[in-house]
Order: sequence, then C-alpha cells, then structure tokens
Amino acid sequence: MKRMEGGVCAAAGFKANGVHCGIRKNKTKRDLSLIVSDVRCSAACVYTQNLVKGAPIVVTKKHVADGYAQAIVCNSGNANTCNADGVEIAEGMCSLVEKYAKIPAQDVIVASTGVIGQPLSLEPIADGMPALVDGLSAVNGLYAAQGIMTTDTVEKQIAYTFELDGKECHIGAIGKGVGMINPNMATMLIFITTDAAISPEMLQKALSADVKDSFNMVSVDGDTSTNDMVAILANGLAGNAEIREPGKNFTVFRKVLKKTTTYLCRKIAKDGEGATKLLECKVSGAKNKRTAKIVAKSVIKSSLFKAAMFGADANWGRVLCAIGYSGADVDVSKVMVAFRSRAGYVCVCENGSGLPFSEEEAKRVLSADEIEVLIGLNDGNGSAVAWGCDLTYDYVKINGDYRT
Amino acid sequence: MKRMEGGVCAAAGFKANGVHCGIRKNKTKRDLSLIVSDVRCSAACVYTQNLVKGAPIVVTKKHVADGYAQAIVCNSGNANTCNADGVEIAEGMCSLVEKYAKIPAQDVIVASTGVIGQPLSLEPIADGMPALVDGLSAVNGLYAAQGIMTTDTVEKQIAYTFELDGKECHIGAIGKGVGMINPNMATMLIFITTDAAISPEMLQKALSADVKDSFNMVSVDGDTSTNDMVAILANGLAGNAEIREPGKNFTVFRKVLKKTTTYLCRKIAKDGEGATKLLECKVSGAKNKRTAKIVAKSVIKSSLFKAAMFGADANWGRVLCAIGYSGADVDVSKVMVAFRSRAGYVCVCENGSGLPFSEEEAKRVLSADEIEVLIGLNDGNGSAVAWGCDLTYDYVKINGDYRT
Repeated sequence: MKRMEGGVCAAAGFKANGVHCGIRKNKTKRDLSLIVSDVRCSAACVYTQNLVKGAPIVVTKKHVADGYAQAIVCNSGNANTCNADGVEIAEGMCSLVEKYAKIPAQDVIVASTGVIGQPLSLEPIADGMPALVDGLSAVNGLYAAQGIMTTDTVEKQIAYTFELDGKECHIGAIGKGVGMINPNMATMLIFITTDAAISPEMLQKALSADVKDSFNMVSVDGDTSTNDMVAILANGLAGNAEIREPGKNFTVFRKVLKKTTTYLCRKIAKDGEGATKLLECKVSGAKNKRTAKIVAKSVIKSSLFKAAMFGADANWGRVLCAIGYSGADVDVSKVMVAFRSRAGYVCVCENGSGLPFSEEEAKRVLSADEIEVLIGLNDGNGSAVAWGCDLTYDYVKINGDYRT
Repeated sequence: MKRMEGGVCAAAGFKANGVHCGIRKNKTKRDLSLIVSDVRCSAACVYTQNLVKGAPIVVTKKHVADGYAQAIVCNSGNANTCNADGVEIAEGMCSLVEKYAKIPAQDVIVASTGVIGQPLSLEPIADGMPALVDGLSAVNGLYAAQGIMTTDTVEKQIAYTFELDGKECHIGAIGKGVGMINPNMATMLIFITTDAAISPEMLQKALSADVKDSFNMVSVDGDTSTNDMVAILANGLAGNAEIREPGKNFTVFRKVLKKTTTYLCRKIAKDGEGATKLLECKVSGAKNKRTAKIVAKSVIKSSLFKAAMFGADANWGRVLCAIGYSGADVDVSKVMVAFRSRAGYVCVCENGSGLPFSEEEAKRVLSADEIEVLIGLNDGNGSAVAWGCDLTYDYVKINGDYRT
C-alpha cells in the first residue's frame, strides 16, 4: 500500500470537477462538485442518524437502493434541509447531471452542505452544470474537494495504491466537515472512489464496519449533522476478480479503506472549526472495546477539556471528570493519564490520583499542534481511538454568525 | 409566598459566614463558608452521578446517612477530588467545625469546589476556622454565598417566606456553579435552609423530586461535575406540625422549594462561564414529559446553537438539528420554533420548515439578555423547561487557563 496523488481521481475511470455556480456569495469559492465514473459502479453509503435529514439523503437512499451508482453531485453553501421543496430540488440536481453528463438520474448520488432551512434555488446549479461537466477530468479532483468545503480551511483528499490478485488497484477520497460534527453510525461528507472490483454487498459491509471505528469516533462539537453521508463508488476497472465474499482480498480492501478513512478523520478533526490542535484520544486497558470507545468519545467531546488543550493547560482533572460521567463501566481508582506529542511525553495521573510533573514540560508537550491523550484503564484489553480538536475563540466567532 | 432578603439566614435559627483563609491566592476572594443551625436539622442531599466523586461527597454521605445534620462547611479554590488523602482532609474540615463551633463532626455536611486533582492542605482551613466561627451571624449569609464562588461573577442567594399551619416559615438558599455544569440526578453546589418542620424522609422525597425538573435541567457546558451536591437543612424552628407524609402542607413545601430552586437554576445558567445571555428552552406538545425534557436539554446543550445565540443569529436550523439528534421520539414535520424576549416575539419555523421572518426583528429579539426558545412538537401534552446560556469567547478564555 503506497500513498499517491490524485485524490478522488486516483482510481482508473474516475473524473471530477468543481466550479463556482453562485450558491455561495463569495465568487472565489467553488460551490458545486461532480465526480463521475466511466462505467457503472458498486455503491455503498452510510447516512446521518439525525431524525432531521437533508432532502439529498432521502433522494440518495432511493438512488443507491439497487447497490449501483455512477456519479456524485454535491453543492456547498446550502444544506437543502427543512425546505418544503427540498426533495424536488435534490432530484432536479440529479436530472441536471443526466442532462449534461449523460448519466441516468437514478444512478446519481446527491449531497448538499451548508445552512439549514434556507430555500435552495435550482437556478445557479442549472447555470453552472455545463461548465462543471465540461471541466470533468482526471486531474481536477482538487476542484471537487474545494467545491464541497464550507468553513473548512483546507481541502481534504487522499489516495493510495494497493494490490489485489496482482492487479494494481487505487482508492481515493475527498471529505469536508469542520463543524456540526459528532457522527453517529455515519459521518460528515466523504466521497470515496476505487477501481477495485467488489460487489455492492461486500462494499456496504466494508463501509459500515469501517465507519464504526473511523468517522463515528470523530467529534468537533458534539452536534450530529442533518446531512452527514459517506459514499463509496467501486467501478472495477482495476481488473481484479470481483470481491464477493470475506477472505484475503476483502481483508486487504478493508485495510486500505481504514487507512483512507483514518487519514480523513485526523484531517477533519484537525481542521475543526476554529481549531488550532488535533487531539487524538487513545484508550487502552478497557474491559472491552465498547467501554474504550465510550471513554475516548466522552473525553474528546468535553468542552472544558477542549478549552484546556487550547490553553496548553495540563488540567487532567477534566479528563478524569469526563471519564467519570461517560457512563462507561470504569474503575476510576485504576486510571492512568498521559499527554504525548512530538515535543515529549508527560504522565500526569496514576491510579486515579495526580502525579507530580513539571508544568513547563507539560506546557511544551501541549503546545504542539497534534496531541495524543493516552488513557490506561488497567481493566482489560479493550482499546479505541477518538479524534477531536481544541475549543477556541474562533469556534465561537465562526458560529456566532454563520449565516452572514 | 413572598420573596425576602437574608438568603440562607432567612430561616429562624440559621447563621452563616464566609472568610478568606488562603486556599485561593487572591486575598479579596472569600474561600471558606460555614452555615450552622442552632438545633439539629432534618437533612437531605442529592449528589453528582459522576463515577469520579470528590472526597467531600464520600464524607457527607456518611454524615447524613441518619437523616440529620446541623452545619455545612464548604471551601472554594480546590475540589479535593482525585487526591489520595482527600477523605482524610474532608473529615479534618468537619473536625475543625466541631472544635470551634461545637457541632459534632458527624453532623457536618462538607463540600469543596475548584480545581480537581491538586492536593488540599488543611492548614489554611485550620487557620481560618476561628474567624469563620467568630463571625457567624444571621446577617452574614452573603459572605457564605461569596465563599463558595469560583468563576461565578455574582452571588446567588434567594429567600421566601410562606405559611404552614398558620405558622410563618422561611426558606433560603445559596448556590454556586458556572462551569462543568450538566447535572445528572444532582447538581452544582446548592445549600438550602428552612425553619419548616419536616421529617428527613419527606425532606429527601421533596428534594429528589424537585431536582429532576430544576437543577437536572440546567446545562452550561455539558460537563457533569465531580463535586455536585444539593443539601437542605430543615430545623423546624418555625413551629409548624412536622410534615411526615404527603398532603396539603407537603404540597406547599414542594411549591416553595420549586420556586427557590428555579430561581437558582436561572441564576446559574445566566452566570454560566463567559455567558452574556440566559437561554430558557420551553418545550410543549411532546408525546410525554420525558420526550419534552430530552428535546429541551439537547437544544440547550448544542454548542452550535449556543454560539448562534451569542451572535443573536436566528439560525433555527440548529434547533431542528439538535431536536433531530436528541434521541427523542419526535415527528420533525410537526415542529414549531419561535424566539421570545422582552424585545419581542418571532416565529421562525412551522411544520418543520422555515417561515419568512424579518432578520432585523429577530436580531432585536435575540439581542436581549434573557431569551426564550419556544418549541412546539404538536404531538401530545408533555412539556419541560431547560436552562442554559450562550457560548462566548469568554467561556474559552476562562477555561483555556483555569488553573493559573
């Protein structure tokens, strides 16, 4: 498995593009993206569990019900959620893809991201579609990554090459998401493409298993979005024998998928709204994996802990506090807490009580931009990782007046 | 029922005081408080459900196990939590009360609030106790209210006079709490005194029922403290016939208790760390009360919604989003959302979709310092209220470097 360039266009037979069509006021921001495959693909999706669901999710569910799709269209600047005509608009977006890209509307995955509850007009999308389709190419993956960004400050894309049956395969992905992030059985917007051959059933199986340990373990602010979606398209152009059951090849596929999604989890957490630091909470020694996940997620979500990390303050009492109210079955008198970063390592708590430590050294460790929070529960073999970010002035600034 | 001055000393036979003993560095801040009754009282407490519990909670539970107590001692500046010698220190505080105030240590309720995981020395407490006891008086309730404050910006005290059996009774209370507030079956620190005569069992019954709709419905930051405690002392000096069972007098008592605790809930939420606004989320029309409470709590806890309120931004999509991920059984297509304050009223969502509204008017309504978020679920008769505050730069500032 090797990392490569190309993002969502790294896999054979995929083209992409992103344009500014006018949904967002700022003309320098792309707001409409399209990813297409030369051939029809196995398709799998997971969606937000929020009861309030964006209209695109309703339409996408219908379109991928047969396990196949060939394109993904996505706009930013408007979530198309809580609008009376939302489904009609989302279907209209798919019809525009059919009209200009000659891909059947029912093979189009549609997504929207941005403000909830503001009417979305089809007009700018209709205006922008010809240029969007004209510009589709295997080198424009970056534009597609840009077109789905909202308050994201960096594009999020990744690609790997790997082998199945001696055939060179590729997997690539783009993602967005910096706020309203606390996925539950699904996630922010992630679009993954691969030229590996894999049946729709096995693709769904791989994706559903993966998100439990990847995107579902990310939290920026504890708010689960109405429009979360992870979609994966596999067009089979790599020429490997189609994966139709568990086995060696499925294991390899799951491994590269995990590598891809983990990269995006870290990227999304680090770019959390207003964030200056990536927090990676690694829990080990739990009674079981479920306990480890509950603890990791609780710590990564604590506003008090996140604010302390912003201030590079080794206030480990807030870690203990978040473990204590997590609901997990933990013996607090056995807990160990340490902080680690490229600047060093400092253990601050053992057996549930504080250890003497150098405040200056702790400050240095916590001043790095990627911090590991290591929690040992000394109670078994369960482990888990969760990703989050610090809570900063800029989070408040960004969200105090998001709509204007 | 009439409001009166005097706080925790409003009821007959109670004296209080607060001094600076040296736990907090700032000499202008009182950090040690004491409330005593002339006679032994019926006592009831509820405590945090956090698995990590402050040592004072362990000691207090033991001391009120028999249903009686006569004094409350509390320090600020240090939570006495996650310390190996914590229980010993908490018991030492009670012994100091016995030594100087001549009240048996086992009749003392002890509480601590402040930083978790830093050793607490008994020395400053021993040094301050003589002056603390010397200054006990029926007019020093304010000092006691000040001595338990941490990052609180205002003292929180209240008192009411009411009648039972034609006897004039009084209830008074002080409270603290501005961060790490998301009570679960218990709450921040609240000390209530009354001269009504009521048995320990009925007092506990009244308190346990009350907190479910009062303190458990407050959230400043979603973090449940390790030291939360509500304690109530009833010394019976008003001379009414002791309340020993449900009935008219118990109903009256519950009503004044509710009035007292609701006042403190609003006060605590409004003084939430960094807060500029009190948010009062009123849910009606729910399938049942439980559903209404889940919805109200979810909205009041949403970081995104809280930040929008700071910016006076009528971003109601975030209200819908928080309803949708709350886990409550809600038909989102029936939801109504409106904002109300002393500056006006604006309805922004009906049947789960947006209504046209004047942004300027909404801005005016949301610029008040107390805002009601009205949610109608149109699905039954369940209702609930939750209290919270906006998320501001100052929350981050206060918590980015709390320990120094």
